[in-house]
Amino acid sequence: MSEQRPIVFGVAGGTASGKTTIARNILRGVGAERIAYLPHDAYYRDNLHMSLEERAHQNYDHPRSLENKLLVKHIKSLLREEPVHVPVYDFTLHRRTDETVLVEPSPIILVDGILIFTRRKLRELMDVKIFVDTASDVRFIRRLKRDIEERGRSLESVVEQYLLTVRPMHMKFVEPSKQFADVIIPHGGENTVAMAMVVSRLRELLTHNSEI
Amino acid sequence: MSEQRPIVFGVAGGTASGKTTIARNILRGVGAERIAYLPHDAYYRDNLHMSLEERAHQNYDHPRSLENKLLVKHIKSLLREEPVHVPVYDFTLHRRTDETVLVEPSPIILVDGILIFTRRKLRELMDVKIFVDTASDVRFIRRLKRDIEERGRSLESVVEQYLLTVRPMHMKFVEPSKQFADVIIPHGGENTVAMAMVVSRLRELLTHNSEI
Repeated sequence: MSEQRPIVFGVAGGTASGKTTIARNILRGVGAERIAYLPHDAYYRDNLHMSLEERAHQNYDHPRSLENKLLVKHIKSLLREEPVHVPVYDFTLHRRTDETVLVEPSPIILVDGILIFTRRKLRELMDVKIFVDTASDVRFIRRLKRDIEERGRSLESVVEQYLLTVRPMHMKFVEPSKQFADVIIPHGGENTVAMAMVVSRLRELLTHNSEI
Repeated sequence: MSEQRPIVFGVAGGTASGKTTIARNILRGVGAERIAYLPHDAYYRDNLHMSLEERAHQNYDHPRSLENKLLVKHIKSLLREEPVHVPVYDFTLHRRTDETVLVEPSPIILVDGILIFTRRKLRELMDVKIFVDTASDVRFIRRLKRDIEERGRSLESVVEQYLLTVRPMHMKFVEPSKQFADVIIPHGGENTVAMAMVVSRLRELLTHNSEI
């Protein structure tokens, strides 16, 4: 580790906007060994008191569905160069598992998730805030394909969930949080020009210890 | 000059969005001696056949008011590492002067202007397209202050011109051209985080001759 404190880098954007592709490109371009990666969706609350049926019908697109306090605590630990134990969430059972992933302190702390800019305490910890801004119809089509192909969902159930929670929560929380972004990346994960710019800045920060 | 061909870097955005501040930061951060700077508004057409009165009432926010062919020609010359003579426009007389500015071939060609993404032939020459996206009310307030303080205009004349040509042309040409941007910079010229990212990428391209 350098003498400089770690850099906290946030990547937000709507569902299926290309956040993961961008996070993956950052990991590849900068080197995964130099990055402590904290995906927001590892921090879903463990609704122990609910039945599976009840848990399945929770609104997982609302900021309250995530344990933001724990994420804030983890970022602060990593900033003090202390390792953290990131929870592992089971998306089939809608439960936090007993496992955790050990994340070591690293020069870059990468946080991603649709809702990471909606909480002031999270935003205040971030040095660079990137919003991946992909058109809503394109995002819906990507999500539809992914949910049908990879998760065996039906067209009807995808549309229902999208209209019932995903879209309203996007309009209420995700879209307004774009105002806090430092840089907006249009066209999502295919945008190689923007991605090169992001990776370049991170490399520079790592190499030169320059000021943000 | 390196063996790599020069990089063409475009900065667009509405009136008073902070384009000039960003261009100035690029010139300072990368080094003016490594940049061939082509401001689009140097390329306003010379309406020789019109009276001053007629010229004063032209719509200077329409892409046709600029000699885009000449700008394309100049970019192509610089890409072939040939110097160009950029016209000098007199904004008081609404005339192109007899002077020109000699611009030498450089590793970076920086083009800026509200309308540079509205023409395909211009876009196709650009390797990186940045759109400075500042809220329209903030832009209007900045333009109002600038026009009153620096240009001695009256509130009424600024509002009239804004509503008559600036705003409609923005909606018709500038705003839709945002779709072609690789990176969108919100909050204009005060956005130091985004600016550092842009400058970092340009420095990297100059140093490593890396691929875009």
